[in-house]
Amino acid sequence: MDGRLFTFAGGGIGAWKVTGITPVTGEGLPSAERLDVAPGGAVLPAAAWSLKGITSNERYVTRPEKSELAARQEGLGRPASTCAALIPIRKTAAWWALTQDERRAILEEKSRHIQVGLRYLPAIARRLHHCRDLGEPQPFDFLTWFEFSPGDTTAFDELLAVLRSSPEWSYVDREVDIRLARDSRISG
Amino acid sequence: MDGRLFTFAGGGIGAWKVTGITPVTGEGLPSAERLDVAPGGAVLPAAAWSLKGITSNERYVTRPEKSELAARQEGLGRPASTCAALIPIRKTAAWWALTQDERRAILEEKSRHIQVGLRYLPAIARRLHHCRDLGEPQPFDFLTWFEFSPGDTTAFDELLAVLRSSPEWSYVDREVDIRLARDSRISG
Repeated sequence: MDGRLFTFAGGGIGAWKVTGITPVTGEGLPSAERLDVAPGGAVLPAAAWSLKGITSNERYVTRPEKSELAARQEGLGRPASTCAALIPIRKTAAWWALTQDERRAILEEKSRHIQVGLRYLPAIARRLHHCRDLGEPQPFDFLTWFEFSPGDTTAFDELLAVLRSSPEWSYVDREVDIRLARDSRISG
Repeated sequence: MDGRLFTFAGGGIGAWKVTGITPVTGEGLPSAERLDVAPGGAVLPAAAWSLKGITSNERYVTRPEKSELAARQEGLGRPASTCAALIPIRKTAAWWALTQDERRAILEEKSRHIQVGLRYLPAIARRLHHCRDLGEPQPFDFLTWFEFSPGDTTAFDELLAVLRSSPEWSYVDREVDIRLARDSRISG
């Protein structure tokens, strides 16, 4: 799989302490003390819940946008990024019935999803995982993982508020906001 | 899964008789007498090989193209469609590293993939299955299933020849051409 598949398991173990699980739209997720993030699709037997997603090719960005993203973004795992968020979302059947040009127009020309994300780089690092075509039914379509320093929490909340008020978000019918903190013993 | 996942198994059983398996680019597939096409991901224990794919949202067509396709195409399972083909292909890493606009430009503006397919409707019915984001590693990126009447075999070969000579096909690094015939006892 070239390491493209990841499993996010909420339960009693994992490197990340769960600081909050907030249902934003639709059904939430059961509470969990910790989150384990692991490559591959193995399910932890003791997990309260387990979400899988796979990184994939770009679906919307153009070449100039991709170059700008690549020039500005930083990778995951920065020592100062002791805060993280996992935001699973599901989009409506109406979204998936749109054609590519219609989805792009809503996502970027109307909602500025890519441009808004760029404004928060490199502070907010991000990795997008797709769930919809995994083969087994999944409760969400996307899992987005974010990492940032505690001082950038307000900026991160602002980024989410902008996206959630965009036309694109009228197609989101389930969203959960999971906040996480890395233990000092692990982050050094 | 809303019935989006399908398994194509080559072996000793199945409704379709295999009339030929031709490697077009790269490694072929082992020979098989029959092909079983089944919804879901269950693997037949006795199969010589098994390929899985999932139907998904449109990746390239615009609204006018989708409307034109919908107006002209006919479904699978037509009684006269006693011929079928399964064409698994894999695209190169270079293809997947392209941005959406670059892939669309190669697929349609340079290769006329959608317009070429339209010319052969409704004679050649088609269903596209995606494999690349299934979660478990797959030998191909796409499985395309075609159905047509024996009298349209020449037209089908012409369609393939046009696509294979297009710029898009320079990004195909594995392709196998599997031809099939439905038993008269099954087709009535």
